[in-house]
Amino acid sequence: MPASKQHFTFEVVMTCSGCSNAVNKALSRLEPDVSDIDISLENQTVDLDSTLPYDTVLEKIKKTGKEVKGGRII
Amino acid sequence: MPASKQHFTFEVVMTCSGCSNAVNKALSRLEPDVSDIDISLENQTVDLDSTLPYDTVLEKIKKTGKEVKGGRII
Repeated sequence: MPASKQHFTFEVVMTCSGCSNAVNKALSRLEPDVSDIDISLENQTVDLDSTLPYDTVLEKIKKTGKEVKGGRII
Repeated sequence: MPASKQHFTFEVVMTCSGCSNAVNKALSRLEPDVSDIDISLENQTVDLDSTLPYDTVLEKIKKTGKEVKGGRII
């Protein structure tokens, strides 16, 4: 049975579109295990659906070098 | 015998200090295998010394989601 999909939201410090594009690019490499990536530079949020564990996705975002201020499963 | 240190230079697309700080942060996690990291937002360059293989360092930079336009050992 495949893992069920959850919706994650992370608060990530991004200061320009280059920052948000970089996060998007890094996360896109996890497709199809990550989907519906929605990044808001204005709100400093990264929303996505994923079948991966929370910590795996968090670690991937941290590897971009961006500061992650918080995150949760909603 | 430890691997000898080489100097790498990469051309990386970075559009703000948030971008360059993110690359710096990601590479700093490889210390002490990576040292003397020098990032120029103006010149779009990432210079460093490392005992790691070129491809390992390149992959680490790519994981930030930034576009790497080129790189070489000098």
